Amino acid sequence: MYEITVIYNHPADPAAFDDYYWNTHVALARKIPGLQSASFVKCDTLDGSTPSHYGIARLVFDSKDQALAGLGSPEGQVTSADVANFASGGATLLFAGDPDKI
Amino acid sequence: MYEITVIYNHPADPAAFDDYYWNTHVALARKIPGLQSASFVKCDTLDGSTPSHYGIARLVFDSKDQALAGLGSPEGQVTSADVANFASGGATLLFAGDPDKI
Repeated sequence: MYEITVIYNHPADPAAFDDYYWNTHVALARKIPGLQSASFVKCDTLDGSTPSHYGIARLVFDSKDQALAGLGSPEGQVTSADVANFASGGATLLFAGDPDKI
Repeated sequence: MYEITVIYNHPADPAAFDDYYWNTHVALARKIPGLQSASFVKCDTLDGSTPSHYGIARLVFDSKDQALAGLGSPEGQVTSADVANFASGGATLLFAGDPDKI
């Protein structure tokens, strides 16, 4: 398993982010070869205050080689380039293999 | 499902971090009431360069109420306070409920 975690900062226009994300970006991401599963969730807080970040996306591949091939494919490159079209607050990408159980 | 994601920045002494994390911190975290599962993974990069962050921990609870109760418990408070004993680079906590499938 190899996972890409995308931490999205708060966008200037959350409604525009949501609309573009679900109606355009997701359709591009789904075409990435080797992508096994993916999800998105908006950040929350325990005390009801504003979260430090906007949301978390996770893209799961079978292996690092599959992730490399997927992101390097034309579909992967289109999806990566598309992030600039809606993530007006910026985003942080984290890469990791199999986690160890605590 | 309610998940706490902890993004650890690079510590000053990675070996000391790892030793403390697995031999002390994990034992405290395991005692948090309601904690269903937890994991840790060091960050990687696709191109072999140094990752932007050190590692990612995930703590899973059944619900936000369980997470609130768990973190608010004496064991949760001890675990939270213990982070300062090894995370010399700092850490970011993200909170989120059930993700939407992409």
